[in-house]
Amino acid sequence: MVRLSKSCVLLSNSSACIMNSDSKYNLRGVSSSKEDVHSAIIGLDKGLFPNAFCKIYPDYFSGEPDYCSIVHADGAGSKSSLAYLYWKETGDLSVWKGIAQDAIVMNTDDLICAGSTGPFLFSSIINRNKHLIPAEVLSEIISGSAEFMQQMKEYGIEIHYMGGETADLGDVVKTITVDSTISCRMRRDHVVANNIQPDDVIIGFSSSGKAEYEKTYNSGIGSNGFTAARHDVLNHEYFSKYPETFDSTTAEDLIYSGSKKVSDIFAEAPLNTGKLLLSPTRTYLPVMKTILKKFYDCIHGIIHCSGGGQKKVMHYVDKLHIIKNNLFTAPPVFKLIQQESGAPWKEMFTVFNMGHRLEIYTEEKNAAAIIYIANNLGVDARIIGYCIADDKKKLTIESEFGTFEY
Amino acid sequence: MVRLSKSCVLLSNSSACIMNSDSKYNLRGVSSSKEDVHSAIIGLDKGLFPNAFCKIYPDYFSGEPDYCSIVHADGAGSKSSLAYLYWKETGDLSVWKGIAQDAIVMNTDDLICAGSTGPFLFSSIINRNKHLIPAEVLSEIISGSAEFMQQMKEYGIEIHYMGGETADLGDVVKTITVDSTISCRMRRDHVVANNIQPDDVIIGFSSSGKAEYEKTYNSGIGSNGFTAARHDVLNHEYFSKYPETFDSTTAEDLIYSGSKKVSDIFAEAPLNTGKLLLSPTRTYLPVMKTILKKFYDCIHGIIHCSGGGQKKVMHYVDKLHIIKNNLFTAPPVFKLIQQESGAPWKEMFTVFNMGHRLEIYTEEKNAAAIIYIANNLGVDARIIGYCIADDKKKLTIESEFGTFEY
Repeated sequence: MVRLSKSCVLLSNSSACIMNSDSKYNLRGVSSSKEDVHSAIIGLDKGLFPNAFCKIYPDYFSGEPDYCSIVHADGAGSKSSLAYLYWKETGDLSVWKGIAQDAIVMNTDDLICAGSTGPFLFSSIINRNKHLIPAEVLSEIISGSAEFMQQMKEYGIEIHYMGGETADLGDVVKTITVDSTISCRMRRDHVVANNIQPDDVIIGFSSSGKAEYEKTYNSGIGSNGFTAARHDVLNHEYFSKYPETFDSTTAEDLIYSGSKKVSDIFAEAPLNTGKLLLSPTRTYLPVMKTILKKFYDCIHGIIHCSGGGQKKVMHYVDKLHIIKNNLFTAPPVFKLIQQESGAPWKEMFTVFNMGHRLEIYTEEKNAAAIIYIANNLGVDARIIGYCIADDKKKLTIESEFGTFEY
Repeated sequence: MVRLSKSCVLLSNSSACIMNSDSKYNLRGVSSSKEDVHSAIIGLDKGLFPNAFCKIYPDYFSGEPDYCSIVHADGAGSKSSLAYLYWKETGDLSVWKGIAQDAIVMNTDDLICAGSTGPFLFSSIINRNKHLIPAEVLSEIISGSAEFMQQMKEYGIEIHYMGGETADLGDVVKTITVDSTISCRMRRDHVVANNIQPDDVIIGFSSSGKAEYEKTYNSGIGSNGFTAARHDVLNHEYFSKYPETFDSTTAEDLIYSGSKKVSDIFAEAPLNTGKLLLSPTRTYLPVMKTILKKFYDCIHGIIHCSGGGQKKVMHYVDKLHIIKNNLFTAPPVFKLIQQESGAPWKEMFTVFNMGHRLEIYTEEKNAAAIIYIANNLGVDARIIGYCIADDKKKLTIESEFGTFEY
């Protein structure tokens, strides 16, 4: 049993006692940097393009030297636990469709960064507690996947459903896990290998708003940082009401330590708190399908600002100073999370995307045309910063909340 | 909260009150036939060979009409929960290597049934509770996968590790889930489409013993039926000791309702009870690599007797009477499970493989050569039965425990 020191009781909406944030993540059993996972996989083959965003291997099936293949795995994470809570509170089954989209897009939008926009092969792995998750939830997830694939097809993007496994695993899974594996094959000379240059500009693509291919307003949240976001924002009444939605070995003070109920309205946003947090991860596939087709040989790097947020790019550069000085105004959902958690803004930028979840590194001359393509599909885009040579790697974020050095 | 009727308290080792077995499965939140999962996926495309053991689709990547592709997903199921309990009881980390093998073989040995022995692309999805599962467990699983792949390589079988996802998901996962996705590409004319014929014999391949490519005795258990096997066999002392290893919404009477501790010895077996149940799922890859190479055009069907046990073949036949009248003597692990659960033998054959986990349907003239190949690799094999034409599908099992009709 992990226990908090009694001398530091976490107070939401207060800076009276700001717990060290690393400790808070560790006490909740998550880390945004996954140090010990990385230590466990040391020594594994890094593939053909070690600096690419995904692991890229030879095309073992055809053996053709001009081609390569990627198999990518990711899922909706603990966002499924929030979907469960929201569904139980409101009876609204539709949130499960969003979970289906999350589990797909967390894969496809990593694959975009390697330069692929399909065709993709998609396989799903769902583990559920049958006592709590009935067939109607599975149907909603499956039809959500089908609808997303159909919608992408309208933009020329092929995602083929190849089957999957749904297991009854109540002894291991409290509610439900929704994961996907998505694979693709591509020409090696179309791979974006991440060779970011001094003097590159950074084009950011907004994570929020309503793209042409979205039915409703997207809060911009993605599927990262959900253990923090759920517990920091939601009201402690859910602690006793839904014990199946959190780790019973985490100290009670860290569980649902915020002030909001899922139906509460946050002043600046057009969705209730639950739906704001459950907004399906926006895909950039339709936008990037056109951009990669026209500009793949001009793009020096593409970064999916998922786990690690705006700091993610730091894994892919060396001797470069990244300056992000023209960011989007942070969408309301991130203001809500900060307000409820009291997390320092400097840290917020390393957990959440804060406004854009995809960024392209390229020469400035390409920027206007790239931004135009995004705008045409209803996705806001702009030059959010630039790179300059330096003797080591560093990142400066000049934001509406202050300037932060990393 | 699911509660048992007080009038029927489950007594292990006793037939005083045999609970309806379907009820017992349902109360534990599992089913061997997954009715409601199947209802949720009705309407999904069944692929190019609807009667094959795996879903088979066109080779979307190359578009070549002579080829097809399969993406398959499965995992170690709740066997990981038993590995956790055993590791906590004994400190023996090595059981996690077995879990890695389970999560691979539950895929590859389904793929065998479609006619594929690789090359395979392997991707893993691990969701863990970081409070309970440290990096050393992850390392053991990853090195276990690597060792298994290396061992298969010595038999000419290519399994390429393509990466994977390891997520900290303590709010959803009590201990750890270990799943894999394995894909392959193959010639369409090499697919085993399951066209089982009257007068075919059934060759069964033993699930237990020690194959040339195994380091120790294999109990034959595979990775199916583990919710039942764990709770029916293990002692109730684990109920209060390891609450993290079972679904707290299941009635206490159904949790660890057996008599055995993991270190207890079962008279007829060379392993303690824990290791008997944790025996890694045997793969038939080295055996089938040679058999499929020589006999692929003479094989009418291949069945992996996983979920559904000896009844599995019934999904793949019509107007055929399957008679299994020369089965292997049931390995000790299944006798242990039956002794502890009091389950009817008729049912045992529909949950566990009971002696052979793979069976080939072919003309009798091919049997001797096929059996010889298996024996050469230390895998016992024999003709375990035959098929005859009938006006409907049925199965007869003539076993050491009686004759059963399905």
